[in-house]
Amino acid sequence: MDGILAEVLRGDLVESVHAGAAVIADETGAVRLAIGDPEQPVFPRSTVKALLAIDLVAGGAAERLHLTAPELALACASHNGEPAHAETAARMLSRLDLAETCLECGAHWPTDAATARALAASGAQPGALHNNCSGKHAGLVCLACDDGHDPAGYISPEHPTMRRVTATLADITGVAHDSRNRGIDGCSIPTYAIPLRSLAQAFARFGTGAALDPDRAHACRTLREAVAAEPFMVAGTGRFDTIVTEVLGARAFVKMGAEGVMVASLPEQGLGIAIKVRDGGNRAAEVAMAALLARTLDTSRNCDQTLLETFMYPKLTNWRGIEVGSMRPAETLL
Amino acid sequence: MDGILAEVLRGDLVESVHAGAAVIADETGAVRLAIGDPEQPVFPRSTVKALLAIDLVAGGAAERLHLTAPELALACASHNGEPAHAETAARMLSRLDLAETCLECGAHWPTDAATARALAASGAQPGALHNNCSGKHAGLVCLACDDGHDPAGYISPEHPTMRRVTATLADITGVAHDSRNRGIDGCSIPTYAIPLRSLAQAFARFGTGAALDPDRAHACRTLREAVAAEPFMVAGTGRFDTIVTEVLGARAFVKMGAEGVMVASLPEQGLGIAIKVRDGGNRAAEVAMAALLARTLDTSRNCDQTLLETFMYPKLTNWRGIEVGSMRPAETLL
Repeated sequence: MDGILAEVLRGDLVESVHAGAAVIADETGAVRLAIGDPEQPVFPRSTVKALLAIDLVAGGAAERLHLTAPELALACASHNGEPAHAETAARMLSRLDLAETCLECGAHWPTDAATARALAASGAQPGALHNNCSGKHAGLVCLACDDGHDPAGYISPEHPTMRRVTATLADITGVAHDSRNRGIDGCSIPTYAIPLRSLAQAFARFGTGAALDPDRAHACRTLREAVAAEPFMVAGTGRFDTIVTEVLGARAFVKMGAEGVMVASLPEQGLGIAIKVRDGGNRAAEVAMAALLARTLDTSRNCDQTLLETFMYPKLTNWRGIEVGSMRPAETLL
Repeated sequence: MDGILAEVLRGDLVESVHAGAAVIADETGAVRLAIGDPEQPVFPRSTVKALLAIDLVAGGAAERLHLTAPELALACASHNGEPAHAETAARMLSRLDLAETCLECGAHWPTDAATARALAASGAQPGALHNNCSGKHAGLVCLACDDGHDPAGYISPEHPTMRRVTATLADITGVAHDSRNRGIDGCSIPTYAIPLRSLAQAFARFGTGAALDPDRAHACRTLREAVAAEPFMVAGTGRFDTIVTEVLGARAFVKMGAEGVMVASLPEQGLGIAIKVRDGGNRAAEVAMAALLARTLDTSRNCDQTLLETFMYPKLTNWRGIEVGSMRPAETLL
């Protein structure tokens, strides 16, 4: 049922192949392009962080707490744990006089290896603020407090804040979110398996506000604009999401998730894109996403085309910097 | 053409799937088990490091240079760059009064994240000795010098030392190694795409010495015994190859390679195993290899069965240590 998404070449020979599914859909769920089976359920993982932040903005909490654009972008982020990321998460919590200990995402060394080594060299240990999900968690804590709830236990499916944001997820994707399709994510909040087509549909809606009430539609726009204005916050140094957003700005919202999931929202086209690399390989999701962006966007601007081709056909170099291979998207994506 | 090798579950739902090929063959190349297409060529990458070390031992260089078991095991290794690994590579070079600068593998931070952080905390930078291939490269330099060649440029396919070890690779695999199937490996030496069945056949021969001249057969045995005696050297802390070898000892030689390739040699059974995860995912190669070892070895010893089941059905935990999923081999491997 899966299609080829990307190939890895060593010299001129194919060394590895990534298969999976990719779909482009509009806000009604109508499919404009499908590779593989668009109905197969996938765990969206971190791709839906922006959707989980809708309530933070739509209900007015963000405004009441004076959350800034970098902070809203961080709420949508899988960040590198670089100093600016950790500091921004801390600032979100400072609005409520809360500290890192209220975050229930767990700690891990910064995803960015150089940042992790610098942290180690300073003699420090990583905390929850360095967790790539700390912005999302800080946003959930902000929402819980603004709603008058005790934030403790906000990662549970039964906590009122988690129930609130999950209901929004169910609405925007059009798919029931309950114990039957629930798994636990890396940062301990629930993640719900939904058809890939529904994920693409949700991001078409995220881009246009179509089928959403005005408050949510406005929140989606605010979040997209925050990420477009602060692309570093959504990922970080050297990362696909940050680099692509730096060039495309508000024309495309792109977001990776663990296990080879990736989404994009194209407001001008009214379309959403969702990709699942079946083996979980994020490198192939980036190649496939670059190809689908190049296909769908008006890339007549030279800088767009150059950027997207860089990600569509990445060169692979070895430890001496010698070019040893490359990647390329499947022809069906072109 | 590929078969399923392993699945990744989040809760009870399949999140990701790895496909590829696996083959068990004897020293004649006769296939005992095949999943997917055993004839499809793959780059063996680091799986053939032990085969590249045959000439170092067979020609007497190892003996003349008084190379020890840890040093021979390191010549077969993709190591973590832990202090003992780097020190052992340096000791190999000290036999010839050579320093790290003669290694042409390039430098990278130790693969083991904790080791990399400790190195950074010490204020040091990584060198070629930390490269996971430094033992192989030190072995090639030793061989070159013992043969009376200038080691400079030993990574080139045209260097006499590289020609010598490549001829041995061609002999033991039974496949021509030339510019048509050549790629460049991560550490800059050539790697040659060969049928997966030929790779398994080569490791059947490596385990028994069948079809090899007495010097090479003896060298294979010496190398297997060195790795069995020094399992830490072949990989390092927490690594599959090291942990499995610690329990199975000389009953199985196992070796991972980049891009989801893995081999094993089972001397008592006269068999070789070769696996290629098509997408390059090493996690699936480990699960599949554990299943094929459990199937093929006499695992009546309780400790073997327990160990192999740990690797066949690894638990996946998140940043808070909560169990969120697991992996399992395809039923066809059981």
